[in-house]
Amino acid sequence: MNPATVEMLSGIANQLRIHSITATTAAGSGHPTSACSAADLVAALFFGQMRFDPKNPQYRNNDRFILSKGHAAPLLYAVWAELGVLPVSDLARLRQIGSDLEGHPTPRLPFVDVSTGSLGQGLSVGAGMQLAARVDHLDFRTYVLLGDGECAEGSVWEAANFAGIYQLNSLIALIDVNRLGQSQPTAFGHDLDVYKRRFEAFNWRTEVIDGHDMEEIIEVLSAAGLGTQPLAIIAKTVKGHGIPAIEDKEGWHGKPLSKEEAARAIAELQPKARAAGDVPIAPPRAVAPDTRVAPEAYPPIHYKLGELVATREAYGTALARIGGADERIVALDGDTKNSTYSEKFMKKFPDRFFECFIAEQNMVGAALGLSVFHKEAFVSTFAAFLTRAHDQIRMAGHSMGNIKLCGSHVGVSIGEDGASQMALEDIAMMRAVAGSVVLYPADAVATEKLVEQMARGRGIFFLRTSRPKAPVLYDNEEQFPIGGAKVLRKTPGDKVTVVAAGVTLHEALRAADELSKEGVGISVIDAYSVKPLGTDLIRSTAEQTGRQIVTVEDHYIEGGLGDAVAGELSGEGFRVHKLGVRESPHSGKSEELLARYGINAQAIAGAVRALI
Amino acid sequence: MNPATVEMLSGIANQLRIHSITATTAAGSGHPTSACSAADLVAALFFGQMRFDPKNPQYRNNDRFILSKGHAAPLLYAVWAELGVLPVSDLARLRQIGSDLEGHPTPRLPFVDVSTGSLGQGLSVGAGMQLAARVDHLDFRTYVLLGDGECAEGSVWEAANFAGIYQLNSLIALIDVNRLGQSQPTAFGHDLDVYKRRFEAFNWRTEVIDGHDMEEIIEVLSAAGLGTQPLAIIAKTVKGHGIPAIEDKEGWHGKPLSKEEAARAIAELQPKARAAGDVPIAPPRAVAPDTRVAPEAYPPIHYKLGELVATREAYGTALARIGGADERIVALDGDTKNSTYSEKFMKKFPDRFFECFIAEQNMVGAALGLSVFHKEAFVSTFAAFLTRAHDQIRMAGHSMGNIKLCGSHVGVSIGEDGASQMALEDIAMMRAVAGSVVLYPADAVATEKLVEQMARGRGIFFLRTSRPKAPVLYDNEEQFPIGGAKVLRKTPGDKVTVVAAGVTLHEALRAADELSKEGVGISVIDAYSVKPLGTDLIRSTAEQTGRQIVTVEDHYIEGGLGDAVAGELSGEGFRVHKLGVRESPHSGKSEELLARYGINAQAIAGAVRALI
Repeated sequence: MNPATVEMLSGIANQLRIHSITATTAAGSGHPTSACSAADLVAALFFGQMRFDPKNPQYRNNDRFILSKGHAAPLLYAVWAELGVLPVSDLARLRQIGSDLEGHPTPRLPFVDVSTGSLGQGLSVGAGMQLAARVDHLDFRTYVLLGDGECAEGSVWEAANFAGIYQLNSLIALIDVNRLGQSQPTAFGHDLDVYKRRFEAFNWRTEVIDGHDMEEIIEVLSAAGLGTQPLAIIAKTVKGHGIPAIEDKEGWHGKPLSKEEAARAIAELQPKARAAGDVPIAPPRAVAPDTRVAPEAYPPIHYKLGELVATREAYGTALARIGGADERIVALDGDTKNSTYSEKFMKKFPDRFFECFIAEQNMVGAALGLSVFHKEAFVSTFAAFLTRAHDQIRMAGHSMGNIKLCGSHVGVSIGEDGASQMALEDIAMMRAVAGSVVLYPADAVATEKLVEQMARGRGIFFLRTSRPKAPVLYDNEEQFPIGGAKVLRKTPGDKVTVVAAGVTLHEALRAADELSKEGVGISVIDAYSVKPLGTDLIRSTAEQTGRQIVTVEDHYIEGGLGDAVAGELSGEGFRVHKLGVRESPHSGKSEELLARYGINAQAIAGAVRALI
Repeated sequence: MNPATVEMLSGIANQLRIHSITATTAAGSGHPTSACSAADLVAALFFGQMRFDPKNPQYRNNDRFILSKGHAAPLLYAVWAELGVLPVSDLARLRQIGSDLEGHPTPRLPFVDVSTGSLGQGLSVGAGMQLAARVDHLDFRTYVLLGDGECAEGSVWEAANFAGIYQLNSLIALIDVNRLGQSQPTAFGHDLDVYKRRFEAFNWRTEVIDGHDMEEIIEVLSAAGLGTQPLAIIAKTVKGHGIPAIEDKEGWHGKPLSKEEAARAIAELQPKARAAGDVPIAPPRAVAPDTRVAPEAYPPIHYKLGELVATREAYGTALARIGGADERIVALDGDTKNSTYSEKFMKKFPDRFFECFIAEQNMVGAALGLSVFHKEAFVSTFAAFLTRAHDQIRMAGHSMGNIKLCGSHVGVSIGEDGASQMALEDIAMMRAVAGSVVLYPADAVATEKLVEQMARGRGIFFLRTSRPKAPVLYDNEEQFPIGGAKVLRKTPGDKVTVVAAGVTLHEALRAADELSKEGVGISVIDAYSVKPLGTDLIRSTAEQTGRQIVTVEDHYIEGGLGDAVAGELSGEGFRVHKLGVRESPHSGKSEELLARYGINAQAIAGAVRALI
């Protein structure tokens, strides 16, 4: 070990500490002590170990760093200031509305791939990045910095399990064991052996070090990537290290130093600090750029009108169909691939399919990691179980991420398996994600066309598929633009516009038939795009039915299609009457449940009759 | 070991297999092979180990059993048929709408405490039950049966971590390692050592056994409860054990046998099977009944109008205030107790407070387990992080459970910490839970009164608290019924009714002041009860403002207060115009963000002006 290197990196670490203290004190909030505990680890990584191009932080073969303990954001910003990418003066604007140096990192900054700050999510993202490396034959490494407190999150162990199974040996977790959580010490304090035993049990290689001994840090980092196992570096650290007055003390989480305290701390650190200005950063191995884009067209589809196909099956068929023409597509599933039909993709493209086992949080996080490398990552499981990954989906929204979720087995129409397997809240969950797109096809053609658009689009997409077989309603040439809708029945003199989607669209068509025998006409709309909603068509149709609208959905009455329609159109004086599920459903046959919970043709006809 | 006992229990196990096969074949769906792998374990438990009163399954000192692998439901039903609690003939009605023997267990059955079927949740519930045992000095044990596949769920490791920390030595996990998941083998097959190492790393005692060797099963079960550690029994089993034609074969998850296959299987099992009829069940130690109910009244509150108090702080104050008069109350927090203020309760009632560390899924599951023992379990963390436990909350709804959630730090009003810490989707999430109650107080008095009602009520309650201090608006005597609302401003000639809650109520009051200077009157409503909504008062108020309503909320525009109002009232021709957050927010000062995202007084006034 070159003593000069050790001294240099320690000096940079102290410079990062000074920046972190300065920035949080200027901001009047933030987490300087969490930055200080990790400063040596991070300095060694960026200035002594990682191979990357600071001028091009998105270069595809750069080593990657994920700050899973996002509250140490000032430390990350300090690094990029020392790399010359941010003006050092910007650090004093931390947490201000006019600066993108936010309280927790977001991809508004070019060197941040995903938003962090909800703890325990970074390791999954890192695992997903390493899947991308495998698919694209890249040799970058991914370093993820975690706090010890966040290791209580189950998502960390989902990711650890996954990385162990897939032998992601270029994934390196650094555990900053600073002993102190937000409100009290962690359960294990400085018992590093607990973390060691856990990661080893999850099939990781481990190294236990003093996280402030630069020589030790450099040594273990240089052994990253060996063997077949991912590596966990478990570092004993001190919260607030470098600030003697508050080192290792409770009550200093999320608390900046006063100006006087900061000045004193900085005065003590200054003699041991140095700027990084002249330190060379090792470049990554040069690789060809990834120029793949969506193809001009995907292969055509061939359904027959009236043919019985479940939309969940059409999802799998679609992925398998477009996966050849579009190599960007990868798929992940949580041990439900024979039910979601993602296995159709797996069978054709096994190298681009990742079985994630029953661990939905990690699956969504890994998809987000894949998306950083321009993969179109399709994630499927029962829609009910996507609730398990709600926080990861939420954070993908804040990451302005690009993931394609498919949730199958929605609503009471799944039948006998019962409420635990029925998604009844997924539309509500997915609508309330920043920039999300919520799609709910009623037939195979719509499903296939929507899957194509999911692959072409960018954002948090959700496709809601159903278990029962349903007749094909549309020609193979029909187009389904995002934000559109379809009018399937419309006659002059219609009394009510019924807005439905998925299985209830078929019920609405039956209701129309039933009502027409009574001389009552209704317009029927397929709201396959729930968000953005096909508002224009619903409006223009309902204007001709006395502004009376009935919505019907196989979903809880709250937050779903009905609320979407009411929320968009009630301001204009449209009257929206909602049908949906109002209680925890029982097991039973699909048609029995549609009847019991008031969302079948009879219920729709009844609602219409009550309005005329 | 008495050979007769071994033979008897093995015989009962085979009887349970026969019932499981018969029931699923009659139903035409279900999971007989998952039942058969666990039959020996379950027979030994119920007929050889557990102390309980079959006639009174809710007896508070009964040993408890949780079928975390809920798809093995027919096995559980078979047990209770053999116990004489269900007629054996009922088993043939499995999964029918007229029978409560549902596809996955629900508490519609008296011997089921919580719904299962979303995997990986049972261990947390079991841990919560053992917390209740500790609080109430009961000595029952909780046995949780998990599949190997579900051990990929992070929630299992959150629960394992928690049980290890709290040394819940009467919590016993039985891992039914049958090697096969739904769509393929698990990652570890019959490598039992993986599970052993993991549970040991999480500070559990482990036993590895052959799950079909009754002698071994009985032996390890008899050593449950020793020492200070929870016990994991890791059992090597065969999926479909007892049905030679399909034992250990892929493609048999969730698939019943044909009538012929069933007949053949039963013919082979019958000679080795025996009914349990005469087997004595050991009774539990008798304990006094828990007669505690909510007190007549809680101690009074003493706020001054205009006093600045954050609702998050009032939550903690309220819990601490009522916790003395109401011993049913317990509190759990995820290392945020100094921010949610649940620490105020902890300081007064340390024995009824459980630090859950940063593991929200387990926290909610444990609360549900506590509620089974009539605890009023209050769970607090940042509302954004409750999304982490969405699936547990969903399942608590299907359990018809009783948990009291408090989510703090909602919306952009938290300020500088940034989007990852802001709850912007929590109302949407919580409205779409069966039987939920969603409360959103704007001041300390409302908060205190709502916490009282949460303690008195039964269901899935959610209280949304805010970070900023806000002036007290209400007298100490004001009442806040669930489903109510308050009119704070109302003058003849008002043009618009503004419906707000939390921080936006204060903005609405400012808007009213601003508009009144222009001669424009608005009615202002505090919608502190978002679900059930105070519809009657909103209706009667808005009828006097030309049916024009503006809603404003510190939440995404989808699925929150605005949709709730529109969904309730648009059918009657009210016009609802929504203000809410429409993008992932930036860091900044609270007031800057309220302005930027269009939910402050100016934005409200602007929306009103646009309508008149």
